[in-house]
Amino acid sequence: MKIIVDAMGGDNAPEAVVKGCLLARDEHNVNIVLSGKEDILKKCIENETKDYRNIEILNAEDVITNDDKPVMAIRRKKESSLVKALHAVKNNEVDAIVSAGSTGALLSGATLIIGRIGRLERPALAPFIPTDKGFCLLLDAGANVDCKPEFLADFALMGSIYIKQVLNIDNPRVGLLNIGGEEGKGNQLTIDTYELLKNSNLNFVGNIESRYVLSGAADVVVADGFAGNILLKSIEGTASYIMKGLKEELTSGFRSKIGALLVKPALRNFKKRLDYGEVGGAMLLGVNAPVIKAHGSSDSIAIKNAINQTKNILDNNVVNLIREAL
Amino acid sequence: MKIIVDAMGGDNAPEAVVKGCLLARDEHNVNIVLSGKEDILKKCIENETKDYRNIEILNAEDVITNDDKPVMAIRRKKESSLVKALHAVKNNEVDAIVSAGSTGALLSGATLIIGRIGRLERPALAPFIPTDKGFCLLLDAGANVDCKPEFLADFALMGSIYIKQVLNIDNPRVGLLNIGGEEGKGNQLTIDTYELLKNSNLNFVGNIESRYVLSGAADVVVADGFAGNILLKSIEGTASYIMKGLKEELTSGFRSKIGALLVKPALRNFKKRLDYGEVGGAMLLGVNAPVIKAHGSSDSIAIKNAINQTKNILDNNVVNLIREAL
Repeated sequence: MKIIVDAMGGDNAPEAVVKGCLLARDEHNVNIVLSGKEDILKKCIENETKDYRNIEILNAEDVITNDDKPVMAIRRKKESSLVKALHAVKNNEVDAIVSAGSTGALLSGATLIIGRIGRLERPALAPFIPTDKGFCLLLDAGANVDCKPEFLADFALMGSIYIKQVLNIDNPRVGLLNIGGEEGKGNQLTIDTYELLKNSNLNFVGNIESRYVLSGAADVVVADGFAGNILLKSIEGTASYIMKGLKEELTSGFRSKIGALLVKPALRNFKKRLDYGEVGGAMLLGVNAPVIKAHGSSDSIAIKNAINQTKNILDNNVVNLIREAL
Repeated sequence: MKIIVDAMGGDNAPEAVVKGCLLARDEHNVNIVLSGKEDILKKCIENETKDYRNIEILNAEDVITNDDKPVMAIRRKKESSLVKALHAVKNNEVDAIVSAGSTGALLSGATLIIGRIGRLERPALAPFIPTDKGFCLLLDAGANVDCKPEFLADFALMGSIYIKQVLNIDNPRVGLLNIGGEEGKGNQLTIDTYELLKNSNLNFVGNIESRYVLSGAADVVVADGFAGNILLKSIEGTASYIMKGLKEELTSGFRSKIGALLVKPALRNFKKRLDYGEVGGAMLLGVNAPVIKAHGSSDSIAIKNAINQTKNILDNNVVNLIREAL
């Protein structure tokens, strides 16, 4: 098993990415190919260790940034770490790819270079969201802004397979993100999608309002990429607003300050619950190999977790099972 | 000035609603008409006071509940507290209406009975959301699930007038809820709406990602009712998930428990910041009189605040200004 990592992608690249790869190599015994400028990557490795075991470098002189227009960057920056990494997947030189770089470029590149599975029209981006009961999978989180009901039915199928294999949830509950619980609620897209899901073989539990997503009302939450992205980023934004506001209140007087010192470990535990990096990254479901988007702000631990997650996906044969199901 | 309140609507009706009305009468010197079963309402009043000054009762024998289908309930339940209250507005017997009952019934009823302003196609539901900088107005929060760009441009105009008059914000910043900051991002609806807003006379500050809404990136956040509702309920759901999780962590060990006692007042302050009831209710913008939806779980203070907000809206002539602008 060989996983390629775009070592130049992400806010903390390449140092944190390389460090995360070395951690994953040591802890999870995977073979890793680092894609990026060879001299820089060698320096990053040698800052940490002299041990090159199970680590290769694919030299790439160029880099795609968040400022590049995704599709154009994939077409023009042939020598970028991302495009070279995607071609390595396409040519079966490696089994999967992890990147913390531009989401748009990774999505376009994966679709254009690695290609979609069979009849599937739209791959979907699927991050995990922490809930009261563990985690749920949200898809699509932003890859497809204008969707048809059939796309959402495919998302539900792919998400069910993925979460069953990776989280060992036997009969995953599929919910449709909507603005009301009852059948018949929502816009035309969700009304039509409801019909498709109701008549599918999936364990469809109906509409889920966004306020109940974090209560763990479903294992797989299906949405068009616009609504899914609004949901995901509202959760992130609200969490960061609350943690910031709490910090202000807790440091606003003598009594609170003493109390804050005492509750610090509890708050740290709690913050960990909210931390996406703990779970790894978001998988792009529906392309011919595992493609994992790690958070842009990933530190080395988040990169390590994303690589471990990718190993799980490969061990559990997720892409082949989706191919057979479609 | 006379405000009618549907005294039978809401989780804590009629007791908390009546109590809130009495508080508003005493503090804000408004005339209030309570719509509902006369004998029950009299009992509620007399539990609190013998003072009937500035309080009238409009007897209504029937009640619309959340289980009723909105449009059908408005058409059939002619003797309900809501329908009778809406007719009182329509016939200019009162100036505005407040209800904590079924949102769907209030929206349909207001549109069917009170009627839309002039050429306006779709009224919008506009709650305030607490931000780092105070409050922003979100519209539409769920009245219109499938929207055209022209609807959203009207929402922006109405929201700007409302927030300017009521919060005294001189040149309110209008943001378009979207999944990316740059022009050209989003689905067809937001791309087309961006064009309209860019060419309007409003202070359009561009796209706003949902994660920045609570940072106060705009004073007026415009969205179709589906996306707006997802945003609003994600914020509510995340806040309640975090407050619940924090409570668990803070009561999980001796050290934390002591600390929790010390930080309790700070946490209470913070919870107050998040409390929608503090601001009043959501106005339905675009109908011929002020229609205010108070939160279903409103207590007497929230009802009082919603009535005070309604008084502000009347004092500031919001509906007429919108009529002139459209």
